[in-house]
Amino acid sequence: MPQFLATTDAGFEAAFAALLGMKREDSPEVDDIVAEIIADVRVRGDAALIELTAKFDRLDLTPQTLAFTPDEIEAECARVPAAERDALELAAERIRAYHVRQMPEDELWTDPDGATLGWRWTPVSAAGLYVPGGLASYPSSVLMNAVPAKVAGVGRLAVTVPTPDGVVNPLVLLAARIAGVDEVYRIGGAQAIAALAYGTETIAPVDKITGPGNAFVAAAKRRVFGKVGIDMIAGPSEILVIADRDNDPDFLALDLMSQAEHDESAQAILITDDAAFGQAVADAVAKRLETLERRAIAGASWRDFGAIITVRDMNEAAALADRIAPEHLEICTADPEALAGRINHAGAIFLGGFTPEAIGDYVGGPNHVLPTARSARFSSGLSVLDFLKRTTIAKMSPEALKAIGPAAEVLAKSESLEAHGLSVRARLDRLNEG
Amino acid sequence: MPQFLATTDAGFEAAFAALLGMKREDSPEVDDIVAEIIADVRVRGDAALIELTAKFDRLDLTPQTLAFTPDEIEAECARVPAAERDALELAAERIRAYHVRQMPEDELWTDPDGATLGWRWTPVSAAGLYVPGGLASYPSSVLMNAVPAKVAGVGRLAVTVPTPDGVVNPLVLLAARIAGVDEVYRIGGAQAIAALAYGTETIAPVDKITGPGNAFVAAAKRRVFGKVGIDMIAGPSEILVIADRDNDPDFLALDLMSQAEHDESAQAILITDDAAFGQAVADAVAKRLETLERRAIAGASWRDFGAIITVRDMNEAAALADRIAPEHLEICTADPEALAGRINHAGAIFLGGFTPEAIGDYVGGPNHVLPTARSARFSSGLSVLDFLKRTTIAKMSPEALKAIGPAAEVLAKSESLEAHGLSVRARLDRLNEG
Repeated sequence: MPQFLATTDAGFEAAFAALLGMKREDSPEVDDIVAEIIADVRVRGDAALIELTAKFDRLDLTPQTLAFTPDEIEAECARVPAAERDALELAAERIRAYHVRQMPEDELWTDPDGATLGWRWTPVSAAGLYVPGGLASYPSSVLMNAVPAKVAGVGRLAVTVPTPDGVVNPLVLLAARIAGVDEVYRIGGAQAIAALAYGTETIAPVDKITGPGNAFVAAAKRRVFGKVGIDMIAGPSEILVIADRDNDPDFLALDLMSQAEHDESAQAILITDDAAFGQAVADAVAKRLETLERRAIAGASWRDFGAIITVRDMNEAAALADRIAPEHLEICTADPEALAGRINHAGAIFLGGFTPEAIGDYVGGPNHVLPTARSARFSSGLSVLDFLKRTTIAKMSPEALKAIGPAAEVLAKSESLEAHGLSVRARLDRLNEG
Repeated sequence: MPQFLATTDAGFEAAFAALLGMKREDSPEVDDIVAEIIADVRVRGDAALIELTAKFDRLDLTPQTLAFTPDEIEAECARVPAAERDALELAAERIRAYHVRQMPEDELWTDPDGATLGWRWTPVSAAGLYVPGGLASYPSSVLMNAVPAKVAGVGRLAVTVPTPDGVVNPLVLLAARIAGVDEVYRIGGAQAIAALAYGTETIAPVDKITGPGNAFVAAAKRRVFGKVGIDMIAGPSEILVIADRDNDPDFLALDLMSQAEHDESAQAILITDDAAFGQAVADAVAKRLETLERRAIAGASWRDFGAIITVRDMNEAAALADRIAPEHLEICTADPEALAGRINHAGAIFLGGFTPEAIGDYVGGPNHVLPTARSARFSSGLSVLDFLKRTTIAKMSPEALKAIGPAAEVLAKSESLEAHGLSVRARLDRLNEG
């Protein structure tokens, strides 16, 4: 059973704080192992990759078979049934259409002092996308990472995906091809992150690495951060559903379970202003948990981290939502836009009864890589901005330097940075001579 | 003497690669100490802050004197001479005017399928700004961090600045007041970062921490990352000047020294297409190093990490600049805009002979917190975006769900995520009944 809380309970504040503070993830101590793997790949390159892949993935590779050939990719893609191919293509097109709108503008203007100022966006030259193997090898995640990179204009996009025992997920290769990925390598784990960050004889290094992975991958990404850019370190999935009684309890039960089924550490929370409705949703969840394929995972998540919170009114719901700062927020109320407008911290918002969160996982268009563990308070989901960087531009006219240079000189002196001040003063003196 | 390289040298590629790979910073191993300090502040709060401040800053505080009072700030600000006050106000106004233009737009649209999509930007609720004590206590950095935060709409902005032996830099307090900072605390080091991230009895926790600091501060920021957002971990300053012979060698010498004087680990590089001009700049640097106040620091930086590179033509200069990916790039050539257009990786570009880099440090308008250590390949300087986060929005009409829901269901099944698929299917069935 999930927790049942109500804001009218005497102990609510303590119970809610405990819910927020729950440690849902125990990261195993893998940092030393990861440090060794990275060092090994840096020193021995391909040879280390091949040895580690034989050890962890039980797969014998050569420098020639590290990468999939175009023919191999073609053959795998041909195995994908038409319905799945069509669905991937629809998803890619919708994700592309959404992310194209995120492309920021360059700006350049001249201010009244005669200073020309602005900025310019340029893409990262090369990006690497990590794709997990096994159960969590999601073709949708390939699209969600690769499409924004290509929209941003990344020149070279390399995917690494482990193929334990040689087993390939053809949908992953098809998603990569649809998204315009340039290279796909049969490697995984910390060794793949090391290869992307530092390069080997066969794999050229990239500038930015994104994509989800297990504890080894996460630790490796933390370690190579600085040498390359990384995206966020994703935690277990979360969903918060805010709903009034005018909803089908079974629909909301399925929405809650759609995140719970990801991971035993996932968290699904319902906030409602009607305790009886909350109970009805709990009953619907219990019924669904009898038959769901992933009932063991979803049931554990719901039991350990699930919650149903009854509030006096939707103002309370908005305030609690901001404290939860959920990855996914579904709002199923009479005026969902109005309620959404009162909530500041959420990775993605799904409005109304016809927008199950799962739409956003696949075909809605917005990215499904979103901030977890309350980090929506300070961070955003993946976007084209993750594959772009901004260069600021400044050009002073002689008049501008005369107008603002003296203030720079004063401040440089106040900070005891003499050369800073002199670099301005020397030019001002020249202008004043002229 | 700096290194003299020329692209026509037989050994150029190896020498240039060595220059790029130079390890300029030796981070002391402070991680264990920092972990202890953070744990102490989390457990004992104000008491730990007071004890650590007595130990490291030789200053006795109480919970009542942790923060500067408005009267204390007022009294310190009154000590600032008018010229410095005016310069700070000019700088703040220009930084504000630049950063206001960075504010991104919210978007919301309905696509042909009937899906309403978009995103919304909201500010971080509370931010903390770390300001170093002592020599590196730069009021300009207070403006560069605090002004963008306030432009972004951050509700609460707290500054921590250590005051060793009780010595206060009144310019820092004035810069904080001009920028609209709400709280200023007399603490520093890892303990200040811990207090901002986790809060104490007196200091409420923040959501994002920015600002430069020593190795302890950097290690503490890495440790609290995830609990709060952080800005980049800044390395030593860098400047690359690309110049032809039509420049005053002394001006460029001062520009190079303006970064070299920051830190013995700073790096200043000149690229020119005229070897004789390169020698003239080297001579001018040598002359300036005889008298500069910070000649010991600037001289060590120039000797150990400085370089003058002669290229065949400016196309080579552009290619080398991209490999260096400098924090600051000054272009002093006949057509600096054209050359800038061929360079992709730089934190900030300064164009033409009247734009010494120091203008950008103080009064230009663009931010002076910029990516170092080649990270301009994948990251950007500080901006209002660092204090905002984006929430994506999706709302399906019944027609939209009918149009794209089936594809989501197909993909959910292909990923063995049954509840995802059922959450869509249940609604589609209801719509088809209706």
